[in-house]
Amino acid sequence: MTLIKLPSGSDLKGHKLVLYAPRPTPPEAVAHLKAKFPGLEIAVYHKQFFDTDPYQDISREEWKNVTILVTGSMIPDPEAVPKLQYVQLFSAGANHVVNKPLFQETDVALCTANGVHGPQIAEWVISTFLAHQHQIPRYLEQQREEKWSRADEEETEDAVGRTVGILGYGSIGRQVARVAKALGMNIHAFTNHPRNTPESRRDESYTPEGLGDPEGIFPSKWFSGDLHTFLSSGLDLLVISVPLTPKTHHLLGRAEFQALAGRRTFVSNIARGPIVKTDDLIEALDAGTIRGAALDVTDPEPLPTGHPLWKAKNVIITPHASGASTAYYERVLKILELNLGRLSRGEELTNKVDRKEGY
Amino acid sequence: MTLIKLPSGSDLKGHKLVLYAPRPTPPEAVAHLKAKFPGLEIAVYHKQFFDTDPYQDISREEWKNVTILVTGSMIPDPEAVPKLQYVQLFSAGANHVVNKPLFQETDVALCTANGVHGPQIAEWVISTFLAHQHQIPRYLEQQREEKWSRADEEETEDAVGRTVGILGYGSIGRQVARVAKALGMNIHAFTNHPRNTPESRRDESYTPEGLGDPEGIFPSKWFSGDLHTFLSSGLDLLVISVPLTPKTHHLLGRAEFQALAGRRTFVSNIARGPIVKTDDLIEALDAGTIRGAALDVTDPEPLPTGHPLWKAKNVIITPHASGASTAYYERVLKILELNLGRLSRGEELTNKVDRKEGY
Repeated sequence: MTLIKLPSGSDLKGHKLVLYAPRPTPPEAVAHLKAKFPGLEIAVYHKQFFDTDPYQDISREEWKNVTILVTGSMIPDPEAVPKLQYVQLFSAGANHVVNKPLFQETDVALCTANGVHGPQIAEWVISTFLAHQHQIPRYLEQQREEKWSRADEEETEDAVGRTVGILGYGSIGRQVARVAKALGMNIHAFTNHPRNTPESRRDESYTPEGLGDPEGIFPSKWFSGDLHTFLSSGLDLLVISVPLTPKTHHLLGRAEFQALAGRRTFVSNIARGPIVKTDDLIEALDAGTIRGAALDVTDPEPLPTGHPLWKAKNVIITPHASGASTAYYERVLKILELNLGRLSRGEELTNKVDRKEGY
Repeated sequence: MTLIKLPSGSDLKGHKLVLYAPRPTPPEAVAHLKAKFPGLEIAVYHKQFFDTDPYQDISREEWKNVTILVTGSMIPDPEAVPKLQYVQLFSAGANHVVNKPLFQETDVALCTANGVHGPQIAEWVISTFLAHQHQIPRYLEQQREEKWSRADEEETEDAVGRTVGILGYGSIGRQVARVAKALGMNIHAFTNHPRNTPESRRDESYTPEGLGDPEGIFPSKWFSGDLHTFLSSGLDLLVISVPLTPKTHHLLGRAEFQALAGRRTFVSNIARGPIVKTDDLIEALDAGTIRGAALDVTDPEPLPTGHPLWKAKNVIITPHASGASTAYYERVLKILELNLGRLSRGEELTNKVDRKEGY
């Protein structure tokens, strides 16, 4: 099936945008888009992720004219939206919608919200790592007991000259790298495909202005292929920021923690729990093979009361909370605006899912 | 009294350095200095801050040839050290020694360790601020209770586009600025003297390589004079990093916290407790005038058990621990090496105390 394409035009005349948004859309954001693209018709709905009935608020007649759709998980059937050109998702992943007929049977551009999590998750990584190094959890415990106590010889190993290894150098890892660089750290990056040229180190996906590492200039070393070479490269902090796939499932277990034993690497997981073998992680923590861990994701998740991970040595656990930001929707709207501009100029869209890659 | 000056020479021939150091000196550091300055004679002692008897280990005869001294607080009398040219302190402040006869009656260069605290204290500031924003103390509490709990609507206000106000733009404040900039924050700087020119914004004191803001390029706004204009400039985070002087004693009280009420500024104090009026701080915290505080210093200090500050709302307290770093002595030795080079070339020393300023 081939879609009827509308001609691109600088004011997007003839285009109709439906915001089927899981969050309330600020009226000033709509006004801003209208001012920027005067020809664009905009309809705004506040819908939950579970609202998947396309005809609840929008008639079949209306759908026929929709060219652009912002959505959580509601994806109309291809027959209903003959003019649709571009779907903007709210999530960084597309696995929940990529198998829908619209994307299997047409070439409608599907764009993720990749990049909107970078700042807040990088903050979580930096904050929990430094908190461990500066013994903040212990001091908070002492504060609860109203106890002022520090031994004179207690010193912090500060971050200057230390090395962070970033497993998966995407939008989150790149923002971690920017902050780590400012702290005086070295950056080692591990990527799925080798990145031997400056060109290959670039990241074309959305990055909030002035942040991240879109050019890929921060890492002093790039790794690919053999994971153990990377893990043994003298890491003080390991950041797990790869998607969960069959290839990354249980990627880190006993042998990998042993590879981290040299520097007793601190392990930070903000990706998905099952990338790490939980029992092996607990063993590595309790044996002191690694100096500690910060986990925003666990396996199982939610972590049940009584699970031994809660009380493993030197672990900081938060309930999958690192990605939530008050700026989330604002950043999704930035991606939308960026792509509306590109659409109006007939350019390739940013954050477009490469369906050959499967996500 | 005028001192007998030895001529400068590239290998420091004729110079004698005494390391009267509160920490053990790594032999490789001594070897490094000897290789760099082959003419320099070096004697190493491991002494505590309270070891103030200059003749305990070193004879009167030996002292007569000493030209360079690294010390915690032992300062010999001027008559005993007729060739002394340069004293390198272990501390960032010089108030504990500046009134000694050696510095009152001679022009021996007195240099501080200013700059060695920048990285670790900046890390403490960033870590505790982000921990507050990301609710880490609350999650650690939940972890203790083995409770996985997050309401869907709970979101973090991340740092992008927020503003940090730095009260006292010295080595600590400048490194806070570097990291805050990488987080996407705006920087407002308040300085004692106005800094209206690029030249005046520079900091000539020691900075670990690649860190801090030696050129003064990070602040988007510079303030001086009226404190309230600065406090009312839309700050999300206020970092107190001024020395305690009669002018800064009780600088922040009820009126100043009111000036912070607009954005409910988070207050971070890594300077000295008495800069803040403790009762007014507790009031501002409990009333929610400010969103929280991180305190590495308090008044009184140590904070006694039972003091209401321990249980004030949204406060993080650590026991004056932010400055300790395993890299401390290494950085003092970097300043020493830098200054030995300058001495050998007859240049002005770095971190030299301006005795007219009194500190």
